[in-house]
Amino acid sequence: MADLPDSPDVFLSESEVLDLVMRFLVGHGLSREQAAPVASSLAKAQKDGCRSHGLQRLPGVLDTIAHPRFDKRAEPELKDVTDAVAQVDARFGFSLPAVERGLPSLVAKAKALGISMLAINNGFHFTALWPVVEEIAGHGLAALSMNPSHGWVAPFGGGKGILGTNPMAFAWPRKNQLPYVFDFATSAAARADIALYKQQGKPLPEGWGLDADGRPSTDPTAVLAGAMLPFGGHKGSALATMIELMSSAMIGDRSSRQSQAFDAGAKAAPCHGELIVAFNPALLAGGSVTDDSEALLDEIARQGARLPGSRRYRERQASEKQGIRVPGLLYSRILALMPD
Amino acid sequence: MADLPDSPDVFLSESEVLDLVMRFLVGHGLSREQAAPVASSLAKAQKDGCRSHGLQRLPGVLDTIAHPRFDKRAEPELKDVTDAVAQVDARFGFSLPAVERGLPSLVAKAKALGISMLAINNGFHFTALWPVVEEIAGHGLAALSMNPSHGWVAPFGGGKGILGTNPMAFAWPRKNQLPYVFDFATSAAARADIALYKQQGKPLPEGWGLDADGRPSTDPTAVLAGAMLPFGGHKGSALATMIELMSSAMIGDRSSRQSQAFDAGAKAAPCHGELIVAFNPALLAGGSVTDDSEALLDEIARQGARLPGSRRYRERQASEKQGIRVPGLLYSRILALMPD
Repeated sequence: MADLPDSPDVFLSESEVLDLVMRFLVGHGLSREQAAPVASSLAKAQKDGCRSHGLQRLPGVLDTIAHPRFDKRAEPELKDVTDAVAQVDARFGFSLPAVERGLPSLVAKAKALGISMLAINNGFHFTALWPVVEEIAGHGLAALSMNPSHGWVAPFGGGKGILGTNPMAFAWPRKNQLPYVFDFATSAAARADIALYKQQGKPLPEGWGLDADGRPSTDPTAVLAGAMLPFGGHKGSALATMIELMSSAMIGDRSSRQSQAFDAGAKAAPCHGELIVAFNPALLAGGSVTDDSEALLDEIARQGARLPGSRRYRERQASEKQGIRVPGLLYSRILALMPD
Repeated sequence: MADLPDSPDVFLSESEVLDLVMRFLVGHGLSREQAAPVASSLAKAQKDGCRSHGLQRLPGVLDTIAHPRFDKRAEPELKDVTDAVAQVDARFGFSLPAVERGLPSLVAKAKALGISMLAINNGFHFTALWPVVEEIAGHGLAALSMNPSHGWVAPFGGGKGILGTNPMAFAWPRKNQLPYVFDFATSAAARADIALYKQQGKPLPEGWGLDADGRPSTDPTAVLAGAMLPFGGHKGSALATMIELMSSAMIGDRSSRQSQAFDAGAKAAPCHGELIVAFNPALLAGGSVTDDSEALLDEIARQGARLPGSRRYRERQASEKQGIRVPGLLYSRILALMPD
């Protein structure tokens, strides 16, 4: 049914989605240890209605694992650097298995010392950051995560792409509620969004990009060949630069443009580092001031403002009732790429 | 000469500026320990051509020290919380003497463990964040600093001010160059800028604020009575919320709206907490990847993009040659408010 031209959506249980992705990845030669964290992340994204980082990413994995440096059976190596810092070398597998290897150490250190840091190196990265920071918040910790990508984004006032889309995610544990979580690229738009405008033959909104000569352009083809722009003018540009420095130079890994050079046109997921910082809010809270944070977050939602994460949480509830929606065409495409 | 109607600018040496501010503050009853870090910060800002946080702020100090809870002779109290965390109670003096009290501990902890955190509580805050993060970068560390303010800023999509202008500053140590430093408010514009538009009878740019009914407005008077907006849409709003949580609830101090309630119309500087995180980039750098950060920052500047901090550094050089420029009217006003 799913392979008809007007393929209707299919609805799968979470274990069916996990099974689908595991069959795909293991069938294509990945170790179960490499595949499982990726399957879990894609299933979470699909369940939360976050299409950009859900099953849609699965076919592209084939380009990544075809990269000459990708190791399908990589075993991440954890190094206990100091009482506050851990580092995991992903050894040219996916970045997520390395993150999972390091998380218990990050959490234990933050609980003991109030703050801790986890550096991931040499990981091919294409999964969303929010499932990881949400998981850390489940331990009662606040978490901040960031990474470079490829050098597609021009600095504000500049003309050539040298910064990455450099996402940043944050989670804050709430009392008796799912955590406050955001995850955004510091580029004005996602590269996939620009590709979508191109597909639909529509001009881009102003401020998304520059052509190859560094001039503002609303032509998606010109912008994909030129440079993307950061969100929020010089402030977003400064933030993107901070993320670039903190998650490449600071942890001894590739900058966005080095990651792009490393890709050498393979169209694999970017291979680089990732920084996660965890904080223990229980350590310093409880001064003489009444904690206003729950009332503040409730008030943001009450004003009708978008509380980051809330749409995903609504979709998550819906998926729990009706199953996880997978577009029929995507489902067919995954089945068609499934190894025998 | 400076008190003539067309008061020409005066040019002072750094020690003359420091002396001017010290006479002002000590003359108004502040202990030398409270006054000195504030004098140093105002002199640095004036020297760097950062007028918003320079001597222009000095007259307003009189409102702050008149707040019933302000302690002109407060002695900050340092608490060594864990091997990675220090906390200083400013005890209702200025926040900066508390920061200076805690900095050696922050720096030592970051050098030893790779990451550390300093929480400041109960400080009246009006000085720029950049001189502090720049100082930390002078020790070879990266630094991130943030604080709430008063509840003037509506969340993106909301209608009422509940978040602060919530600034964030970052410094990154460079090789043989002054550090990469930014310091920006997460509001679209500074409150002082809106007041300036009002003074000049000019309409505001779109996107700066809302009127008291939560509708977009370009009328500065309406926006000052209504709400300011965050920079960069929902992303800037998320960032402002993160800063609010991390520098109030996480460190057991007042949120922006609690700080505003605490002020009770006194028009003092906001009294709240401040968070500083320091990182030791030497700990994890030096992997197999050549550090691209210096070339990247050089390239940003070469593209003609504004490298944050570079304008201040140029002004600093000029001040070192010609003296620190102080507008004649401001100089007269300070002298007029100088106690006998």
